[in-house]
Amino acid sequence: MKRTEIATLGEFGLIDYLTGDVQLTQPTSIKGVGDDAAVLDYTGKKILVTTDMLLEGIHFDLVYTPLKHLGYKAAVVNFSDIYAMNGTPQQITVSLGISKRFSVEDLEEFYKGLKQACDIYGVDIVGGDTTSSLTGFTISITCIGSVDADKIVYRNGAKDTDLLYVSGDLGASYMGLQLLEREKSVFNGSSDVQPDFSGKEYLLERQLKPEARRDIVVLLAENGIIPTAMIDISDGLSSDLLHICKQSNTGCQLFEERLPIDYQTAMMAETFNMNVTTVALNGGEDYELLFTVPLTLHENMKSVPGVHLIGHISKPEQGCFLVTRDGQEMQLRAQGWNHLDER
Amino acid sequence: MKRTEIATLGEFGLIDYLTGDVQLTQPTSIKGVGDDAAVLDYTGKKILVTTDMLLEGIHFDLVYTPLKHLGYKAAVVNFSDIYAMNGTPQQITVSLGISKRFSVEDLEEFYKGLKQACDIYGVDIVGGDTTSSLTGFTISITCIGSVDADKIVYRNGAKDTDLLYVSGDLGASYMGLQLLEREKSVFNGSSDVQPDFSGKEYLLERQLKPEARRDIVVLLAENGIIPTAMIDISDGLSSDLLHICKQSNTGCQLFEERLPIDYQTAMMAETFNMNVTTVALNGGEDYELLFTVPLTLHENMKSVPGVHLIGHISKPEQGCFLVTRDGQEMQLRAQGWNHLDER
Repeated sequence: MKRTEIATLGEFGLIDYLTGDVQLTQPTSIKGVGDDAAVLDYTGKKILVTTDMLLEGIHFDLVYTPLKHLGYKAAVVNFSDIYAMNGTPQQITVSLGISKRFSVEDLEEFYKGLKQACDIYGVDIVGGDTTSSLTGFTISITCIGSVDADKIVYRNGAKDTDLLYVSGDLGASYMGLQLLEREKSVFNGSSDVQPDFSGKEYLLERQLKPEARRDIVVLLAENGIIPTAMIDISDGLSSDLLHICKQSNTGCQLFEERLPIDYQTAMMAETFNMNVTTVALNGGEDYELLFTVPLTLHENMKSVPGVHLIGHISKPEQGCFLVTRDGQEMQLRAQGWNHLDER
Repeated sequence: MKRTEIATLGEFGLIDYLTGDVQLTQPTSIKGVGDDAAVLDYTGKKILVTTDMLLEGIHFDLVYTPLKHLGYKAAVVNFSDIYAMNGTPQQITVSLGISKRFSVEDLEEFYKGLKQACDIYGVDIVGGDTTSSLTGFTISITCIGSVDADKIVYRNGAKDTDLLYVSGDLGASYMGLQLLEREKSVFNGSSDVQPDFSGKEYLLERQLKPEARRDIVVLLAENGIIPTAMIDISDGLSSDLLHICKQSNTGCQLFEERLPIDYQTAMMAETFNMNVTTVALNGGEDYELLFTVPLTLHENMKSVPGVHLIGHISKPEQGCFLVTRDGQEMQLRAQGWNHLDER
């Protein structure tokens, strides 16, 4: 039998390959694979469904990830996908694979974080599955939410001349991860060394306890703005912007000087001798909202704090480019974490 | 910090412990943890959500499980949970953790089985997540379905004097597993030996490629019968019947002589020197429907082929008993596979 290595396709290629011939046949299925969440229509409100799997050693390292934070993050990253459809998360199911080294107290910590996130975001835990695992800790969460039919925002609605906005700032989560990895390796080398995180709390928080941007979705609604396309940044700005452009059949221009970067992120990138623009473009796990808005709504957007105009959408033949500080154009590439290549 | 071994609580105890204080706060959440599926209400139809996690080495052994069959089974066990609510499965999301030894063709085989099951049962694949795994193959499927509000069947509606029915036959899947495990150990001992499965095809099919009992749900509806309580048998008749009795606050009497057992199951149990009643009670993975019907509908039930009257519901103070062939009463215990104890 033929054997094709999965790395030859990459994660997105693999999903396309496996699900390319999947047809929706149920009248209740509005949108399937290919956006932040599936859309179901059971009359009235549209239903959104999204799911994420987190595996120990791939998505998190329990050496430096408190279980309570992990529970919080595991929930929030799912909420973020529902907000990215302009919806409201309402329920989650939680499936866990647990290895023998976990105690009830460990799981209770994990659930504490999960429940705290659910409390804050107004989400119910409605089910799940708990089983033993021969190996690491395995988490699979499915989130269900709703949205008014006329307010739903897909990835595929961006149009030429639309303005491109991103909430918050970029790259901090990735620098937080680099910091944790460094301190872990220092710690492994000598037990006398204590991790030094002072002045870097923001980076750690962005990595260990991210938030979903419900506030932005609320602010957009209050200002009568429905984005033409939206996605949450999990793989990295570059990769996620390319998703919007590919699905909308557009190009884009992104301006390096406009990328929002926190002071701590910039400092840390310098310490690690990394290009901070690369970090902002490809770091990922920001869980910020990236969205496009018609040019006509430019004035309205001034009433939405905490979002940054970083570029605009162009015709597909113009391609997808970053305009650097010195005016050069560099083609955008999806260099986000590709877990399937990393193994 | 205190450390309580998870085995001291068991799987169901652990779920109760972790989710006991979970409150439903969303008006759209009708029923959360504790049944085959969660129930959501987005006006009109009720929405059902169920999820299952399958881990390599715990739930399946790839030495003797063809990936296509595994895909089929992984989908069907979720459909079964939706049918057990008297609903119709309509969508699934599929999350996979994939280790390096898997090729694209391997995953294609898995998806072939998944898609076949979806075709047969009229279900759409609407999303999922694909990631790499450092260890085994990890599968998490969430199924969404719908049901008319007045037709939904929970586990908690059984009443004293209700009749207890089960579809199909019991224990075959477990004997199929025993057979596969035996042939695997024989094979490991000597590569000259070929597995001999002739005359045992039914047992293998029940283990490797089970079906969900959509036909029973349709037949019940056609005959105007809405069960008072229903569950699908995944952990074993005994364990799952105790779920109904506990949640309905009833007792029950189950008659050994009425347990439906296939000829191949009985023969195989004899070969393995196992008590076939124990196998039928505790084997599990039957994916048959166990349900209760008011005594007044006894005549109507005669129009439903393929189901067996195996006992009746009693008052809670009468307890839960198996009446043996020689008229003795034995207390029912949940001896289903407890994955959390098995590690």
